[in-house]
Amino acid sequence: MVASPLRAPRPAQTSEIALLDRIAARVATRAGVAVGIGDDAAVLEGDGSWLVTQDLLVEGVHFRRETTSWRDLGHKALAVNLSDVAAMGGVPVAAVVGLALPWRTRPVPDRALEDLYDGMEALAGRHGVTIAGGDVSEGAVLVLAVTAIGRMEPGRAPVLRSGARPGDVLCVTGALGAAAAGLLTLEDPIVATGLAPEEAEALVLAQRRPEPRVAAGRVLAGVAHAMLDCSDGLALDALRLARASGVAVELDLERVPLAPGVARVAEAAGREPDLLAATGGEDYELIAALAPGRVEAVAAALDVPLTPVGRVTAGEPAIRLLRRGRSVAAPRLGWEHGA
Amino acid sequence: MVASPLRAPRPAQTSEIALLDRIAARVATRAGVAVGIGDDAAVLEGDGSWLVTQDLLVEGVHFRRETTSWRDLGHKALAVNLSDVAAMGGVPVAAVVGLALPWRTRPVPDRALEDLYDGMEALAGRHGVTIAGGDVSEGAVLVLAVTAIGRMEPGRAPVLRSGARPGDVLCVTGALGAAAAGLLTLEDPIVATGLAPEEAEALVLAQRRPEPRVAAGRVLAGVAHAMLDCSDGLALDALRLARASGVAVELDLERVPLAPGVARVAEAAGREPDLLAATGGEDYELIAALAPGRVEAVAAALDVPLTPVGRVTAGEPAIRLLRRGRSVAAPRLGWEHGA
Repeated sequence: MVASPLRAPRPAQTSEIALLDRIAARVATRAGVAVGIGDDAAVLEGDGSWLVTQDLLVEGVHFRRETTSWRDLGHKALAVNLSDVAAMGGVPVAAVVGLALPWRTRPVPDRALEDLYDGMEALAGRHGVTIAGGDVSEGAVLVLAVTAIGRMEPGRAPVLRSGARPGDVLCVTGALGAAAAGLLTLEDPIVATGLAPEEAEALVLAQRRPEPRVAAGRVLAGVAHAMLDCSDGLALDALRLARASGVAVELDLERVPLAPGVARVAEAAGREPDLLAATGGEDYELIAALAPGRVEAVAAALDVPLTPVGRVTAGEPAIRLLRRGRSVAAPRLGWEHGA
Repeated sequence: MVASPLRAPRPAQTSEIALLDRIAARVATRAGVAVGIGDDAAVLEGDGSWLVTQDLLVEGVHFRRETTSWRDLGHKALAVNLSDVAAMGGVPVAAVVGLALPWRTRPVPDRALEDLYDGMEALAGRHGVTIAGGDVSEGAVLVLAVTAIGRMEPGRAPVLRSGARPGDVLCVTGALGAAAAGLLTLEDPIVATGLAPEEAEALVLAQRRPEPRVAAGRVLAGVAHAMLDCSDGLALDALRLARASGVAVELDLERVPLAPGVARVAEAAGREPDLLAATGGEDYELIAALAPGRVEAVAAALDVPLTPVGRVTAGEPAIRLLRRGRSVAAPRLGWEHGA
């Protein structure tokens, strides 16, 4: 799922999680499918495991064409899917792209469509991914439906959300809060006062052009007990991991790695920096549960920082946010309130 | 692509084929992908070949909720994708389903969503397919984006559109025209006067619940030189095969197998039955190019009739419609005018 600055809270009865639960209850998992609905990607069995994941981007919900460049939109539509493949520890191979285009009501110029594909293709090329097909249809609003297909490397099993064990250390790649701070900057440039221009630019870029952590996911695949990507906010996604694994999670807010400029923007916007980073969403970093003895060696093997931010404990599935050992109440955990 | 009774001709500059050509020119096919944009499905290389195909169904373009049951809509959304897998000669394994739901403007009741999934699941079950995941998002209109994944059986290569050779016989499975006659019946019940009620019902059912020819596709995979599904009309889809193969195709209209009731409905509607069947679209039968010596044996091995309807000749890619040896001009070839 793609969090969104434009996505407003939905009515309780159509909570996304409740809906997905009801859907999952109505469908059977059949031969050839190891993991169905409920993880970052479905897992098909072949020579090793194949991964399939899909994300929709809808105009007016996930983006507005006035404030997004077509190239960035193409990048992001593919990036969020590659991130789901990375979150299983897999290597993306191909993507198919469905486009609903509002020909009559609000045509997308040819040049814009080319830019959109150029944005996807540039990211695809860097990851050896092929845009291999799709569908084009008329539609009342612009919808991008991207499905990514990935593979696990030989000998590697997909890393599910459900494998975390009490005693594990919860770690996150990279730094958090940049996308949320970038969004605050876009909404009100005054919050970026005092930032170096390149710092402010990096925050906006994080919001518009997230980098899927494919290389890190491949390394973590050999070690992590559980993993998912941090699309809707560390706190909410960690809660999802806790629920899938049947464990509790404690998060140390003071250990959450803040991206450069996040603290300043948060303060200027009257937000608590650690909470902004832990609940802001759209960072597309990886959250992994690791045995304590493995953290250091894995961190050394990654191309991005890996930071321990909490621990997995036995108990009812829940998340506790701690600041220097004391519980903190967050106004919200992330972009989805079904949690 | 899904033909549609609601789909009006689009502006020339956004012709779907021209658009797909331009998109295809901008993306590279990379390692692990044998066939990219342009066939019924993309082909990924693994232990044998994996197939990936996607179709969008958009409210107001492909269906209206007033005239479609949710269960039928679920069936059709999956069926058109399984048909694409069948058209490569493959066996479908799984599907992921993206749903954009207009929560605010025109909510889909929970019960309707359950019916939608029940319709998909019933068809999935009959084909051993797993609904393995997807995405749910808000959207201004209801969009279903279904991606199906299939595999080729061991030792079988995917059957592309591009393999037809001069001298081949063009064959079609089943009978044609039922979906188009069903649509005429829905639009104006008077055209069904004189049909037995179960005959009229079968025509409407053909329109609403097409049966993907998966079993036939598996058999044809070992023999056909080229294949695609007949979603937009035999004539138009045969032209696509001709273009992809660099050959010409002649279609004998008097040999086109008419589904029961089609002749009567066509006459009542003032249409020529053979042209209605050859250009009506949405039958989801398979069109295959076969060596003449193989037709009889293959036909005997299929669970549906296989009818020779034309031949492949050397020449500029084109299609000629013949009626008892004389050229016939069709007002249109099918649902897509980009052709």
